Amino acid sequence: MAWHIFIPDSLLEETSDPKIRTYKVGQIGRAAAIFGVEHVWIYKAGGKDGKFIKLILEYMETPQYLRKSLIPLTKELRYVGVLPPLRTPHHKLKGRPKLGEIREGIVIRKGKRLYADIGLDELALVEGSGEGRMTFKIVSLKPLKVVPSKPEEYWGYRVHLTRKSLAKTLKKAKLNLAIATSRKGEDVRKVNLPPLEGEVGFVFGSPRKGIMEILRDFNEDYPFDLILNTIPNQKTKTVRTEEAVLATLAIFNFIRRD
Amino acid sequence: MAWHIFIPDSLLEETSDPKIRTYKVGQIGRAAAIFGVEHVWIYKAGGKDGKFIKLILEYMETPQYLRKSLIPLTKELRYVGVLPPLRTPHHKLKGRPKLGEIREGIVIRKGKRLYADIGLDELALVEGSGEGRMTFKIVSLKPLKVVPSKPEEYWGYRVHLTRKSLAKTLKKAKLNLAIATSRKGEDVRKVNLPPLEGEVGFVFGSPRKGIMEILRDFNEDYPFDLILNTIPNQKTKTVRTEEAVLATLAIFNFIRRD
Repeated sequence: MAWHIFIPDSLLEETSDPKIRTYKVGQIGRAAAIFGVEHVWIYKAGGKDGKFIKLILEYMETPQYLRKSLIPLTKELRYVGVLPPLRTPHHKLKGRPKLGEIREGIVIRKGKRLYADIGLDELALVEGSGEGRMTFKIVSLKPLKVVPSKPEEYWGYRVHLTRKSLAKTLKKAKLNLAIATSRKGEDVRKVNLPPLEGEVGFVFGSPRKGIMEILRDFNEDYPFDLILNTIPNQKTKTVRTEEAVLATLAIFNFIRRD
Repeated sequence: MAWHIFIPDSLLEETSDPKIRTYKVGQIGRAAAIFGVEHVWIYKAGGKDGKFIKLILEYMETPQYLRKSLIPLTKELRYVGVLPPLRTPHHKLKGRPKLGEIREGIVIRKGKRLYADIGLDELALVEGSGEGRMTFKIVSLKPLKVVPSKPEEYWGYRVHLTRKSLAKTLKKAKLNLAIATSRKGEDVRKVNLPPLEGEVGFVFGSPRKGIMEILRDFNEDYPFDLILNTIPNQKTKTVRTEEAVLATLAIFNFIRRD
């Protein structure tokens, strides 16, 4: 099973303070990481912050030692100091290399040879080919050598800024189960939930508009498998997107049985 | 049933930015309001921010029109502009008074007569007695008249800064069911939960220390009814207090059946 969340590019439409804007995207990144979300989709909903949201989410997801190489420092990253670290398994600390250890790295070409910066004191020789950011396994300590590999545990999320409307974004994601969250949805406590299997998507609206309204704005419709109110009897008039994301993922993490 | 949450005075020990400190307390206030928590307890855990946490939580909980009268403007309130509004039923907007409407107000004495500011254009005459902040019901429109009353829906939370250790704070709260949250607790999915009735308390640790460690620091013990891991299989090394509060309340809101 892989989890996807869908966030509107208007997530920050009610937040003007640049530090809080950064922090709020950070809350989405944290929620995704805590519950092992693998794909964060940013869909077009009339907002202006798609690129910024993507940038901050990707900054958070990138292991600290790779940020300098992969993410050019721009004005928009001014407040990344307030972002809480993810502390996921793929954010490894320095330390002694261990045989068999999986580490995220970036490929560096030196003449005809490939090396990888995997966040240790020395570069590792790469056996095999590739470029850019990759996942490696340490296969030799002296000399330090790695091969391209696949992660065995939760390894962060990918961010997709589709610049497409919600229905089109959902089609692109090829979900097996699409769950919309809405205050007007069915009470999550009273629904017979289908098994959570395959690609499961949780869709969230914006601060000002629910999912159905966003779809209508684009003259769209989408055959959601479920439209759920995951916060039945809420006592506040509205629930913010970042609150709904954490609450909904917490409940489905409680429900999942794998 | 009434819900209580217990927060350490060290909640902000890892947050130095004053704007983010304000915002983070705001996340606790929002979580409490969304799920109808009635009591927020701040217990002594070696932190320095008990007073600040209480101030921000009370500021948020006070209807906008009463803040000026009830909460003196101090330097610590500098960043309250970043706080999301609660938008609970007791935060009424201005508008025409309605017969039978319940509104929060503050008593104002003029000579021998008592009036109340209930957030409307005119003061209301008070039938009965009282002082300070009170809940009123409108019993006449011309003249505008109110009587002390009781709320019929969720009416915000009370904040208790006990300046006492956790076990002593818990004793003071006289709970019927005390639930500790801990990464090392039992998987919430595998526990037979007792009925949620009476005064139910959810206890949270600090960014650096779990509940058991905090109790040990004070040479204390407490007979919790349950010690639960409410985020089984978390993918991040730690879950922050404000994240744990929202996630835990979301799950118990899902579980409750009243």
